[in-house]
Amino acid sequence: MDGKFITFEGGEGAGKSTVLARVAEKLRALDYNVLTTREPGGIQISEAIRHIILDTNHTAMDAKTEALLYAAARRQHLVEKVQPALTDGTIVLCDRFIDSSLAYQGYARGLGIDQIYTINQFAIDACMPSLTLWFKLNPEIGLKRIETNSEREQNRLDLETRAFHEKVYKGYQILAERFSDRIHPIRADLTIEEVTELALNEVISHINQ
Amino acid sequence: MDGKFITFEGGEGAGKSTVLARVAEKLRALDYNVLTTREPGGIQISEAIRHIILDTNHTAMDAKTEALLYAAARRQHLVEKVQPALTDGTIVLCDRFIDSSLAYQGYARGLGIDQIYTINQFAIDACMPSLTLWFKLNPEIGLKRIETNSEREQNRLDLETRAFHEKVYKGYQILAERFSDRIHPIRADLTIEEVTELALNEVISHINQ
Repeated sequence: MDGKFITFEGGEGAGKSTVLARVAEKLRALDYNVLTTREPGGIQISEAIRHIILDTNHTAMDAKTEALLYAAARRQHLVEKVQPALTDGTIVLCDRFIDSSLAYQGYARGLGIDQIYTINQFAIDACMPSLTLWFKLNPEIGLKRIETNSEREQNRLDLETRAFHEKVYKGYQILAERFSDRIHPIRADLTIEEVTELALNEVISHINQ
Repeated sequence: MDGKFITFEGGEGAGKSTVLARVAEKLRALDYNVLTTREPGGIQISEAIRHIILDTNHTAMDAKTEALLYAAARRQHLVEKVQPALTDGTIVLCDRFIDSSLAYQGYARGLGIDQIYTINQFAIDACMPSLTLWFKLNPEIGLKRIETNSEREQNRLDLETRAFHEKVYKGYQILAERFSDRIHPIRADLTIEEVTELALNEVISHINQ
């Protein structure tokens, strides 16, 4: 039996990573085989590519170079880690995937959703997630959550302007309309327990389809 | 005045790198501003990408990952080195460019010319060469030239099978037909002096168009 490829998406502070870990735990308690991952996912080639992207000496990196590097890292993580697990019948829960590139680079950075979609289709062939949960949260609330969470190390994207995070939100909105069969919004303004419950229900109903 | 972007293409042993250097020398003697380059061209980010592609520990590298990495390195070399020179009115002679990816990865490796063309169009925007010289040589002769040239260090591509080099030749043939306005075949079975003369004439007639 083939597994299920499910991705978790959303802006900063929407709680998707925490919820992903909890959903995985609950699925395992129900005896499902689950792999949790996120790019670059410990894949040597993808980690090396990631290193180039994040190298602060590379200040001259062009936005399109960056987009191609993300697509390359995605390809290798998919081929080496995700696809073998799916072939084994595993449920793969992946923290961010193609829609992050579409929302952040395609829409918010202005490279164009269609262009980023095209190079990512090359990268992933037909291996699209069958379900994507979009953790939908007003970006203002998300940013406040990050600021008050002292345990969370701030990353480069957290430091972008509020206007950028609003654009990311708008990008996800556009994607959720365009791919409404695949992308299901999840209310992320509730407690972690409540959001986990909503996400788990979506995942289980998808698995049992 | 904008410069001219001219690329030199062909299989192994066709002599294009030698001819490129000689054509540049003759153009400079005629008082033209000339930049000779080849990817990754000393661009730090592109060199780092190239390092990942050539790292022999990366035996698991997928062909599409490799194609995306080449496109990323191409993008950065173009933006940092080629485009500024063109803006300055320089004649840029580049040893291999998009057509190498189309012939080697798109056709000979079987990834598909159209697919490789699409991701490379993303990488280079509209900055296509206005003239491409294809050094056309029976691949059997090219391989013999390499084998008997003790000064030339063999690279990974030299060691591919003869069948592969024949496919590369066929790939260039297809491209020369499809892009007949841009790609001009140059007889490469003559002496270096004669081939240089043919190439120089093509370049000068293109510059004076």
